[in-house]
Amino acid sequence: MSSATEYEDKTVTRGELKYQGKAKQVYFTDNPTILWVHYMDQATALNGKVHENIPEKGQLNSAISHILFEHLTRQGIENHYLSSVSETDELDLALDILPIEVVTRNYASGHFVSKFNATPMQKLTPVVQEFYYKSDELDDPFMNDSQILALGFATLSELTKLRAYAQEVNQALTEIFDEININLVDFKLEYGRDSEGKLILADELSPDNMRLVDQKTGKSLDKDVFRKHAGDVTVGYRDVLSRLENLEK
Amino acid sequence: MSSATEYEDKTVTRGELKYQGKAKQVYFTDNPTILWVHYMDQATALNGKVHENIPEKGQLNSAISHILFEHLTRQGIENHYLSSVSETDELDLALDILPIEVVTRNYASGHFVSKFNATPMQKLTPVVQEFYYKSDELDDPFMNDSQILALGFATLSELTKLRAYAQEVNQALTEIFDEININLVDFKLEYGRDSEGKLILADELSPDNMRLVDQKTGKSLDKDVFRKHAGDVTVGYRDVLSRLENLEK
Repeated sequence: MSSATEYEDKTVTRGELKYQGKAKQVYFTDNPTILWVHYMDQATALNGKVHENIPEKGQLNSAISHILFEHLTRQGIENHYLSSVSETDELDLALDILPIEVVTRNYASGHFVSKFNATPMQKLTPVVQEFYYKSDELDDPFMNDSQILALGFATLSELTKLRAYAQEVNQALTEIFDEININLVDFKLEYGRDSEGKLILADELSPDNMRLVDQKTGKSLDKDVFRKHAGDVTVGYRDVLSRLENLEK
Repeated sequence: MSSATEYEDKTVTRGELKYQGKAKQVYFTDNPTILWVHYMDQATALNGKVHENIPEKGQLNSAISHILFEHLTRQGIENHYLSSVSETDELDLALDILPIEVVTRNYASGHFVSKFNATPMQKLTPVVQEFYYKSDELDDPFMNDSQILALGFATLSELTKLRAYAQEVNQALTEIFDEININLVDFKLEYGRDSEGKLILADELSPDNMRLVDQKTGKSLDKDVFRKHAGDVTVGYRDVLSRLENLEK
């Protein structure tokens, strides 16, 4: 794997590992405003308790993510993606990541169904938005606004923005997936503050972090296939990527 | 136990059992706008999985509840309490109870501490407000606004009112407990709709539903004593009642 690339006519060199996530490795570079991210082939479930190596998953997620981030950029939605280095590596804006995950649900699925005895794939109106505190130790607890504010995990202004920004992302992603006959069931976003405190979309936009269902067959095209041990997860990921690539042509 | 009483110069006669709760029995009366409520000596913990008979608890909770409901009425806060029938029985306004419990937390305690690794008795600013869906089957799940709205458990206008009303109750109760050197740590409220759809405070206001801590000794004066098997729960309840009664004099 290469350890240097060009970005805006300058050479960016990969530095030390900053952080090893469940499915990504994040490296410093010689430019403090830029991070070097490597998409791994690893998959985890149950908050990291189950993991497995899935060949090709890294490059599929990387390719899907790039198409979706570029789609958001065209829609005027700022995000941390700067450029692709290789099939599995990218440059991202260095951000101070908020400890809050923002989940958006258009249809009832997964945890939401079992927790509330909801009807699977019931359309949710209004769209459901949930905040989770990122903490492996505490098992990523679900929180409401007043809890987050009282514990100082984010400010009221940040929560208001997170909700509005996630709504914009939902609209842009729902539209692009609709064009390729896929329902965006739910998805998880992460945000970070840039050097001026502005909130910018971070993390990845891949079937690892969203539920995608074929509008005709109702088939899962996302990580649920892995969670449910329902076969080769990359079949769905490859299908999503090829539909997105055809759309780009 | 008597089966008839006077209310507004009319005889009210107790009818059939409407509902048997964890610590109360609710009866119909011959007046469809009035219910007859009996406070039981039973205590439960862990959502009903543990229960025990505690002599005198019914009359202590009944007496504390009456003082607190009358205090709220004097503060202009409407509630379902109409009049006392006996040491353990009262007449309440018949309401269509919302399936939402409203929890208010002034200090970190119990579940809040373990879930978020918060500092016990940390002052919470802003005050934390939480909604739980009343469902034994689902174990009373914690919910945010968008989940409640999408599943139709309450309307946006109702949630806005619940939050404002609970805030008013918190202020009134915090004040009265402060006068008797007790910190109101947290408490649970229930609301019901009257025949015109107006939200009115229901349930009971007793140490079964609130955490109360002596400001000097830090001692629990509430149901935590039972939850933690830390001795005779009625000692604390009797202490709370006698301080409230002295205040009334």
